[in-house]
Amino acid sequence: MENTFLNKTTLIQYSDKNYEKSKFSSLSQINLSDNSTDTKWINTYGFDFHDEFKTIILDNNLDDFLIKLLMEEEHDTKVILLDDLLFVSINVLKTDEKKLDQEKMIFIVSPNFLWSIQEKPGDYFGWIRQRLEDNKGIVRKKKTDYLLYLIIEAIIDNYEETYLKHEELSDAILEATNIRPTPDFTNLVENRKQELFTFKKAAISLKNTIVKLEKVKIKGVNTKYFSEIKEQTINLIADIDFELQELESKINLIFSIQGHRLNEVMKTLTILSVIFIPLTFLAGIYGMNFENIPELKSQNGYYILLGVMVVISVLAVWYFKRKKWF
Amino acid sequence: MENTFLNKTTLIQYSDKNYEKSKFSSLSQINLSDNSTDTKWINTYGFDFHDEFKTIILDNNLDDFLIKLLMEEEHDTKVILLDDLLFVSINVLKTDEKKLDQEKMIFIVSPNFLWSIQEKPGDYFGWIRQRLEDNKGIVRKKKTDYLLYLIIEAIIDNYEETYLKHEELSDAILEATNIRPTPDFTNLVENRKQELFTFKKAAISLKNTIVKLEKVKIKGVNTKYFSEIKEQTINLIADIDFELQELESKINLIFSIQGHRLNEVMKTLTILSVIFIPLTFLAGIYGMNFENIPELKSQNGYYILLGVMVVISVLAVWYFKRKKWF
Amino acid sequence: MENTFLNKTTLIQYSDKNYEKSKFSSLSQINLSDNSTDTKWINTYGFDFHDEFKTIILDNNLDDFLIKLLMEEEHDTKVILLDDLLFVSINVLKTDEKKLDQEKMIFIVSPNFLWSIQEKPGDYFGWIRQRLEDNKGIVRKKKTDYLLYLIIEAIIDNYEETYLKHEELSDAILEATNIRPTPDFTNLVENRKQELFTFKKAAISLKNTIVKLEKVKIKGVNTKYFSEIKEQTINLIADIDFELQELESKINLIFSIQGHRLNEVMKTLTILSVIFIPLTFLAGIYGMNFENIPELKSQNGYYILLGVMVVISVLAVWYFKRKKWF
Amino acid sequence: MENTFLNKTTLIQYSDKNYEKSKFSSLSQINLSDNSTDTKWINTYGFDFHDEFKTIILDNNLDDFLIKLLMEEEHDTKVILLDDLLFVSINVLKTDEKKLDQEKMIFIVSPNFLWSIQEKPGDYFGWIRQRLEDNKGIVRKKKTDYLLYLIIEAIIDNYEETYLKHEELSDAILEATNIRPTPDFTNLVENRKQELFTFKKAAISLKNTIVKLEKVKIKGVNTKYFSEIKEQTINLIADIDFELQELESKINLIFSIQGHRLNEVMKTLTILSVIFIPLTFLAGIYGMNFENIPELKSQNGYYILLGVMVVISVLAVWYFKRKKWF
Amino acid sequence: MENTFLNKTTLIQYSDKNYEKSKFSSLSQINLSDNSTDTKWINTYGFDFHDEFKTIILDNNLDDFLIKLLMEEEHDTKVILLDDLLFVSINVLKTDEKKLDQEKMIFIVSPNFLWSIQEKPGDYFGWIRQRLEDNKGIVRKKKTDYLLYLIIEAIIDNYEETYLKHEELSDAILEATNIRPTPDFTNLVENRKQELFTFKKAAISLKNTIVKLEKVKIKGVNTKYFSEIKEQTINLIADIDFELQELESKINLIFSIQGHRLNEVMKTLTILSVIFIPLTFLAGIYGMNFENIPELKSQNGYYILLGVMVVISVLAVWYFKRKKWF
Ligand SMILES: [Mg+2]
Ligand SMILES: [Mg+2]
Ligand SMILES: [Mg+2]
Ligand SMILES: [Mg+2]
Ligand SMILES: [Mg+2]
Ligand SMILES: [Mg+2]
Ligand SMILES: [Mg+2]
Ligand SMILES: [Mg+2]
Ligand SMILES: [Mg+2]
Ligand SMILES: [Mg+2]
Ligand SMILES: [Mg+2]
Ligand SMILES: [Mg+2]
Ligand SMILES: [Mg+2]
Ligand SMILES: [Mg+2]
Ligand SMILES: [Mg+2]
Ligand SMILES: [Mg+2]
Ligand SMILES: [Mg+2]
Ligand SMILES: [Mg+2]
Ligand SMILES: [Mg+2]
Ligand SMILES: [Mg+2]
Ligand SMILES: [Mg+2]
Ligand SMILES: [Mg+2]
Ligand SMILES: [Mg+2]
Ligand SMILES: [Mg+2]
Ligand SMILES: [Mg+2]
Ligand SMILES: [Mg+2]
Ligand SMILES: [Mg+2]
Ligand SMILES: [Mg+2]
Ligand SMILES: [Mg+2]
Ligand SMILES: [Mg+2]
Ligand SMILES: [Mg+2]
Repeated sequence: MENTFLNKTTLIQYSDKNYEKSKFSSLSQINLSDNSTDTKWINTYGFDFHDEFKTIILDNNLDDFLIKLLMEEEHDTKVILLDDLLFVSINVLKTDEKKLDQEKMIFIVSPNFLWSIQEKPGDYFGWIRQRLEDNKGIVRKKKTDYLLYLIIEAIIDNYEETYLKHEELSDAILEATNIRPTPDFTNLVENRKQELFTFKKAAISLKNTIVKLEKVKIKGVNTKYFSEIKEQTINLIADIDFELQELESKINLIFSIQGHRLNEVMKTLTILSVIFIPLTFLAGIYGMNFENIPELKSQNGYYILLGVMVVISVLAVWYFKRKKWF
Repeated sequence: MENTFLNKTTLIQYSDKNYEKSKFSSLSQINLSDNSTDTKWINTYGFDFHDEFKTIILDNNLDDFLIKLLMEEEHDTKVILLDDLLFVSINVLKTDEKKLDQEKMIFIVSPNFLWSIQEKPGDYFGWIRQRLEDNKGIVRKKKTDYLLYLIIEAIIDNYEETYLKHEELSDAILEATNIRPTPDFTNLVENRKQELFTFKKAAISLKNTIVKLEKVKIKGVNTKYFSEIKEQTINLIADIDFELQELESKINLIFSIQGHRLNEVMKTLTILSVIFIPLTFLAGIYGMNFENIPELKSQNGYYILLGVMVVISVLAVWYFKRKKWF
Repeated sequence: MENTFLNKTTLIQYSDKNYEKSKFSSLSQINLSDNSTDTKWINTYGFDFHDEFKTIILDNNLDDFLIKLLMEEEHDTKVILLDDLLFVSINVLKTDEKKLDQEKMIFIVSPNFLWSIQEKPGDYFGWIRQRLEDNKGIVRKKKTDYLLYLIIEAIIDNYEETYLKHEELSDAILEATNIRPTPDFTNLVENRKQELFTFKKAAISLKNTIVKLEKVKIKGVNTKYFSEIKEQTINLIADIDFELQELESKINLIFSIQGHRLNEVMKTLTILSVIFIPLTFLAGIYGMNFENIPELKSQNGYYILLGVMVVISVLAVWYFKRKKWF
Repeated sequence: MENTFLNKTTLIQYSDKNYEKSKFSSLSQINLSDNSTDTKWINTYGFDFHDEFKTIILDNNLDDFLIKLLMEEEHDTKVILLDDLLFVSINVLKTDEKKLDQEKMIFIVSPNFLWSIQEKPGDYFGWIRQRLEDNKGIVRKKKTDYLLYLIIEAIIDNYEETYLKHEELSDAILEATNIRPTPDFTNLVENRKQELFTFKKAAISLKNTIVKLEKVKIKGVNTKYFSEIKEQTINLIADIDFELQELESKINLIFSIQGHRLNEVMKTLTILSVIFIPLTFLAGIYGMNFENIPELKSQNGYYILLGVMVVISVLAVWYFKRKKWF
Repeated sequence: MENTFLNKTTLIQYSDKNYEKSKFSSLSQINLSDNSTDTKWINTYGFDFHDEFKTIILDNNLDDFLIKLLMEEEHDTKVILLDDLLFVSINVLKTDEKKLDQEKMIFIVSPNFLWSIQEKPGDYFGWIRQRLEDNKGIVRKKKTDYLLYLIIEAIIDNYEETYLKHEELSDAILEATNIRPTPDFTNLVENRKQELFTFKKAAISLKNTIVKLEKVKIKGVNTKYFSEIKEQTINLIADIDFELQELESKINLIFSIQGHRLNEVMKTLTILSVIFIPLTFLAGIYGMNFENIPELKSQNGYYILLGVMVVISVLAVWYFKRKKWF
């Protein structure tokens, strides 16, 4: 197990001048508290190394509450301030798949080192490693606070991109001319709402995390970086809320169209019925077989009746016109 | 009464090195403020020992407001900071039954002892006692703050598990293909909503308790543990809200399906009526018994009328086609 | 007027050892700031003693803003911190009547005295006077802060009891099997909602009062008691909100039942119409009196037509079966 | 312009002992910062005296940001803390008209003077001037903080009275027995909601102003008075919200009545149709002119058919009874 | 590129006495930290000058996090407090177009200089430059805090004007007499709601920015100005919410009119049907060709039947009158 752990663990050590990427050959090599001015970024893939985690925590005199925290089965997004150490766990949306699943990531941060633990290799943080290696930007001039900032920014940027991509798709499917008062269309709208709720839950959770990071007071941890990404999450949430309101409008429209169509249908039926029911009744009257119906014998009876029917129809039409039914 | 009380009360005394489980033989033996460095966990089953509570509180010089608090008939979830002492009362959901009833638990906590009072033996905290006995994890290295943390975590974990179990059940019953626009289905959705509101009320109440615990400032009580479980409750509440929004979508769908079906039904009726009402009227006209209806005598009258009827039908169908009714 | 005032004013003076109940014989006797260690509870019934209030306030060097406050026509629930003095006014629900009216109560509180002014004698606080007289509980060991706590607790307990009593009534009337999609049932639900809003407004108002009491910083006033009753109001509000959500579900059910019934009614009409309208039309055709309708002369014409009608009916029924209309 | 300004400006100077009402004869006479212990209340009607405002501000060494603030075209409700000076601007509802328009008022307050600027003379503050002149209450014993409190209280009391007057009107029009499921009634309810929203906006705006006044820390400005009126606005808002919930219930009732009536109408139509459509069809059958319809020749054919029709009707009625349609 | 940058960059340098507008001839000329008491307003059009930005930041020893911030692709509204420097980025609504697009603006503010970066020249801030040149108002007496205040006020005033202009348009189109229960009208209302949501999002975003500016504590930056514009945004948001509630009322009205019309239509159909269906049935009965129908032979049979029909009609009309259907 220890070998697997060592195999799945990488160390990047850097300062303004130096950059070195390596692996550990034994657990005892993992020295987090040495006094070198370099910054260390340790990355582990996998959460099941309970014994190794315990050894490292005890060897390096880290807060032993970390042992309990790393044993936890499930991890919600949380920030816990330990003795001069931050424990950050994030439930990241897996945005590369159609269905938005979640993946947990853990970050243990002190001014000197950042230890990230992920489920399996992904492509979130590749560009950060590249910037470190190439000494691009200011990342190598800064400490772990800036590194944590870049990591969380990468997650948010990813959310934003995925959100924008999905939004375009949804805009195309739900555009105004497509609105149909059918359960299928309602279903499309409601499914998009579900997706937005998922995004919103993830974004709010991330925002809460950053808000807590912003309030952390550990010597050597600069929290100004976090206000930048906090505002990014706030804006993402505002965008999502905006689209949710758009969809709510579509639901209103669907119900309004349904109501309107029903009115149209019933008006059609009623107008036709109101005109023809009395006429058909009259025809029925003179279709009766009574021996003594004097009108039937009248020479112009048929024509007089037709005239009466025209008058009745005209009155009915005039009545509906006055009531503005058509 | 005193004997019953002693019988229903257990003491677990522990430190990193020691662990001892015992019973008291008299009330006067219950010494909460001695200077031993051991941590004491006293557990009592039952709330009716008013006199015994009073004796213990006065004998141990505890804040006498505790007397009033322990006499209270009903206990809502509350945290009260007394002189160097915490009074915590929680209304716990009984998650082992189908119907979600409540059970009250009281915890009186100082840095040296934790006195828990429950209605009757349950299986919430067995694993904590086991960890204490087996010296698993870090619990014996820590004081009562950590013990209280484990206790509340056990309650939350229980809520989460029950919530997840019920959610699966509900997902199976309410799945998309089952949506029917009937009152019965609406009732299913609304009942699940009621259940979620019950969970949410319990989770919010617990969250408020933990928030207050997090702010407590008693020497020797470390509040960092509580941020961990606070975030757990926040996440549980977010999950519940998410499912509530899902259910709200289903309600919208139900109404949309109802509206759609009504439209379909009425269109069917109207189309058929609009086609046949004029035809039936015409048949009625020529079923009249006027002596002088010239058309009746025409050799092809019948065939001409049939032709007219076909034309009327075709016009009606064309009209509905143009209006996109089908 | 002075005599009426003295007549309607009672003094209870108590300490751990002493208890005395008396009346004042003149306004000048009312000495609120003497240095006795006893606690004084003065109670006045009636708000119209403007001159007497003014005299007492000036004689005892109380904050003269009290004069203005006691002159106010209407009193909303408020807490005002004056010079080492609390002015508390509460709009109490009169829970003894069916209709929930309000009654105002004023409490002027310093560490040494509590002056309560009520509209007219009620039965809210009798048990507190009894506890004082009998030296039950810890009330005589405590000062006015504890007395104010007991008074407000009495008000809340009263709300809770009334709420629970009304809830049972409402549960009986609105139980699931009674749900009817009629305006009368909707009215029952909406009336209960109104009642709950009244309770909620009173409970929120009381909670706000207690929150402010909790923050008061007057030497000798202990605010820990108020956290206990604050949580009680929070729980009452949560209970009310829970029932409100239940009622909202019933409204949804009512609309769902209405929609469902309309669909059932219209389906019945449409199915019957769709089957019979063509048949009646056919009967009308062969009821016409054209001289030349060859079918009428056919020996089996009648039976053939009946056969055709059966075929049409079967097709219509099959069509509706396929569409799952019944 | 200066003369107009002097003409429209009045000075009331008062202390516990003195009261003097006067006009200024020149701008240079306006000395706000003299060391007299009297309190000055300057009132100006009109906002267009830009030059005069500037002169007074510069002559009296007031914060020059006041110049900018007094030039503003439009004034929203705001409180701005300047150097030992408060700038308060309030958008007051004109409650004397049927339509609730707004009027702006500005108050510049220091411990020694209060300068109020209003659009035109109104009757809001007459009673305060009267109290000052008659030395009623405690107003002359207090400084400008108390004066500002009385001014804002006058505004709120005015809102409350107008609100209550309008509420009575609305209660009369919208009472339970008047509820009709018509657009006109819906319109009445929605118009009352609009009016309430206007009140609520004004009350919230005023509450925010008072909240800010409560937090102001200027030497010599006592903020305890403002808690009294803050609670008054909070209560007014709660009352408005309560009535809004009542109106929302009426909207629900309207829709419920509409749905119920539609159901009743359609049931009537359907029951009648279901009974008569088959009967009319049967009559149609035996009204056909086929030469060979044996039943027609049967002696009791007519009576048998009538019997069959009675049976069909009875079955239909029984069917609807079983379905609880009537 | 450097030339383009210098070309698109302008410097306005001012104090109470001086005013000078100029361009830089090289990057090295841009000296932000010199000790002159003048205030500098540098304005750049365009965001793509990455190298130039970096040079200026490093040359002037500004916080190097600015480099990262200025490289960002997308800018949400944000305020970041750097070392004695404010980074403000605002997403401004482009109110000059019909469709409300957004444009980003960046402001870097220290007590001595304000560096604004915009996409392209606009007419927002022309009047500020004019006031500076003409020494109108107090702007030249103040530092960059006041300048930033004027800039943001210009943005808000612009929002308010655009909002008011659009509101008038919308009021004209959506006025009470125009309400139609059609999808087109619903669409008008929902589109206006979308527009309001856009305004509200922009206004909330701006308010959050100002709230953060109000809390900034940099020596030499006076935050009192920002309370003035904060209240302006709060009022704008309240106005928007008010109109949103108005529109929500219109949606309720639309549904109420739809429901009412459907009821009217169905009542018309039902009344007519209930009257004529039995009559037509009776006519059908006596149109049957049974050889033995005694009534047909009666001399007054026809007249008796007509009498029966009149009675039936009168009963039906009386029934509907009693049910208040018309
Ligand atoms: Mg969890
Ligand atoms: Mg980025
Ligand atoms: Mg979109
Ligand atoms: Mg960013
Ligand atoms: Mg954005
Ligand atoms: Mg809606
Ligand atoms: Mg809806
Ligand atoms: Mg757990
Ligand atoms: Mg689910
Ligand atoms: Mg946990
Ligand atoms: Mg979870
Ligand atoms: Mg809904
Ligand atoms: Mg109680
Ligand atoms: Mg209930
Ligand atoms: Mg209690
Ligand atoms: Mg309770
Ligand atoms: Mg309860
Ligand atoms: Mg609803
Ligand atoms: Mg609804
Ligand atoms: Mg404005
Ligand atoms: Mg009042
Ligand atoms: Mg009312
Ligand atoms: Mg008042
Ligand atoms: Mg009131
Ligand atoms: Mg509604
Ligand atoms: Mg962005
Ligand atoms: Mg302006
Ligand atoms: Mg408008
Ligand atoms: Mg302004
Ligand atoms: Mg405005
Ligand atoms: Mg609605």
